[in-house]
Amino acid sequence: MSLDTARFLADLNELRQIGAYKTGVHRPTYSPDDMRSRQWLMNSMTEIGLKPEIDGIGNVIGRHTGPGPHLLAGSHIETQNYAGWLDGALGVVAALALARAGLPVDVVAFADEEGHFEGGFLGSRSAAGDLTEAQIDASRSRNDGTPLRDALATAGLEGKPRIVLDPSRYKGFFEMHIEQGTQLENAGEHAGVVTGIIAIWQFRIVITGQQDHAGGTTMAERRDAGLTAVRLLAAIDAEFPRICGPHTVWTTGSIKLDPGAPSIIPGGADILFQIRDISTETLQRMEETLVRLIQESNRRERCTTELIVIRRSVPALCNPAMMAALDTAAEHFAPGKWRRMQSGAGHDAQVMAPLMPVAMLFTPSIGGISHHWAEDTKEEDLALCCQILEHAARSFLASS
Amino acid sequence: MSLDTARFLADLNELRQIGAYKTGVHRPTYSPDDMRSRQWLMNSMTEIGLKPEIDGIGNVIGRHTGPGPHLLAGSHIETQNYAGWLDGALGVVAALALARAGLPVDVVAFADEEGHFEGGFLGSRSAAGDLTEAQIDASRSRNDGTPLRDALATAGLEGKPRIVLDPSRYKGFFEMHIEQGTQLENAGEHAGVVTGIIAIWQFRIVITGQQDHAGGTTMAERRDAGLTAVRLLAAIDAEFPRICGPHTVWTTGSIKLDPGAPSIIPGGADILFQIRDISTETLQRMEETLVRLIQESNRRERCTTELIVIRRSVPALCNPAMMAALDTAAEHFAPGKWRRMQSGAGHDAQVMAPLMPVAMLFTPSIGGISHHWAEDTKEEDLALCCQILEHAARSFLASS
Repeated sequence: MSLDTARFLADLNELRQIGAYKTGVHRPTYSPDDMRSRQWLMNSMTEIGLKPEIDGIGNVIGRHTGPGPHLLAGSHIETQNYAGWLDGALGVVAALALARAGLPVDVVAFADEEGHFEGGFLGSRSAAGDLTEAQIDASRSRNDGTPLRDALATAGLEGKPRIVLDPSRYKGFFEMHIEQGTQLENAGEHAGVVTGIIAIWQFRIVITGQQDHAGGTTMAERRDAGLTAVRLLAAIDAEFPRICGPHTVWTTGSIKLDPGAPSIIPGGADILFQIRDISTETLQRMEETLVRLIQESNRRERCTTELIVIRRSVPALCNPAMMAALDTAAEHFAPGKWRRMQSGAGHDAQVMAPLMPVAMLFTPSIGGISHHWAEDTKEEDLALCCQILEHAARSFLASS
Repeated sequence: MSLDTARFLADLNELRQIGAYKTGVHRPTYSPDDMRSRQWLMNSMTEIGLKPEIDGIGNVIGRHTGPGPHLLAGSHIETQNYAGWLDGALGVVAALALARAGLPVDVVAFADEEGHFEGGFLGSRSAAGDLTEAQIDASRSRNDGTPLRDALATAGLEGKPRIVLDPSRYKGFFEMHIEQGTQLENAGEHAGVVTGIIAIWQFRIVITGQQDHAGGTTMAERRDAGLTAVRLLAAIDAEFPRICGPHTVWTTGSIKLDPGAPSIIPGGADILFQIRDISTETLQRMEETLVRLIQESNRRERCTTELIVIRRSVPALCNPAMMAALDTAAEHFAPGKWRRMQSGAGHDAQVMAPLMPVAMLFTPSIGGISHHWAEDTKEEDLALCCQILEHAARSFLASS
């Protein structure tokens, strides 16, 4: 059997009909359309000869029934609200294409990679044995507050056992995904071999000053938490570009001034600040600089600034042999028109990385649009990347 | 008749019982306790021999029945929520003390100086002929959304005529008030002769960038509206101290980043920014600098910044002869322990200023606390300032 890219594109377009919204789709986790897409996937698996199963968190896995060594391949099938037709569905349908081409692949769609429910990566964490019943009890929908247990019951998943993967069954996990950025498009390239998934170090910066009437308090008397925030963020803006790595990004996602009224000097400021990089060493260096800038602020300003660590995730590095197989395949199908790149966004592969070797392949995103119904990728790039993936999977399986 | 400061303090302490909350009071406009305080005021007026009246917006005026020339004196009697016992009540009770001492004073308590209802300065604006029926129709409580018309009906004021003051009756308006700051206390002074009430120029600064995923977009590609906001506010922080007047203040009350999520590069920033000064020339110079800094930002940054003028109020200058009378009286009762100062907060006097000469006298505020139940002033300072006010009113009335 050889790879059928026409069938691969037809499958993607068929799946696109489920929850169609404008040119995209709306399939939030455990919604009727999401459950229909999981049923569609199980039907496809059966047709190919895989043995499908859906578990108590909504993960769908279709197991190859022949001898190994096996690969695991897939991604997630639900979408952000009113989002794109590809995203994770692309990786699931590409995995189907590998199985249809006769590769010994278990196809997986992990539930709720998109984080409609509190916790994040529920499906892949559950499959990795890293999700407790208590965490399921506590989780609620970020959209409307529905308890996760209620959503699972409504979806018909209540009481089903949860599958925990056996890492010894797999030589590695391949995940194909859209880039969600413009690096490939801007360079006129057709594929990205992912070197790793960056870690996110998320902080809260809490500044305490003195709330006062804006008319009754001179500039010299003020303890303006908002002004201290601006000075600190300006210092970060000046310092961070000097010490960052080549691909480090840092983001101030939110600044909240308390009470936030026109005529009141803010007594408090609450900032969400994050740093992303693939190198823990770089992340450590940047956090040290952040701590130093806050110490300087506390020596200079009349407000007190405190740094609270929300999370420090671990970067997931892709497997060198799997990357090499992807490099060779990419150079074969798109000579000189591909690159190695890191993933700035999180993916199920990072949850699989502690269990088994992982690798990811990125397709270009038109205009970099992601998590929006206008998200798209050229069909020739989709077909090309499916060929690269299949070629790499075969050669990696054949390697010792 | 001479000034009875003991009675003045007793009156203040009696009024303090109405709506008492901890050591302060809670008398929001048109609440039962607010209306009880207005009734208390009318009873006091009657007792003194004034002719009291309450009008359709809740203003209470007690008219002197003898020959002129007359003064108008007073302030407001309602309070912010769970706020101090003095604030405006001080000025009303001080005006009562002047009338009791035989001065030809009309005593006034303007309604809702504190702005519980939309519009602001409802009572003094109504008395100045500057409040339309349509504005009353449109106004709602900022506390709970109750229409002003409903609140007036509940308070028993529906259908009552509204009093418009005849400026020709008055030689001037005196308003005593707490400082709401720490300038007097820090200098060990007992009285402040107000030179004028500053103007507030209120702006919105709206920055438009591009919302993107914080993981998929390099620093060089970003159009981060929050970062442009930080750079602009840092530039203001650097430039404004160089060009401001001696008492100018400027305040960033609110910064809102859109959408304000940890992993999304803000596509929009919305800033509330205000400048306060007594000099229109200074305000103009500072607005010109703000416009220049925004132009520079628009040349340098990848986000577009727009300045929206919300309001430019006019400063209210106090009358030189009235100030001179207050200076003389202050130097008599507190030699070397008083100052001239501007008012950073708004007061009813600014609404009266276009109609007649106005002047204000500030008492010290302990710890600068205002709009909080802990607000307080030493009783000896209250009595001293009442004496200064009475002395100044007499000499101003006697002047040609």
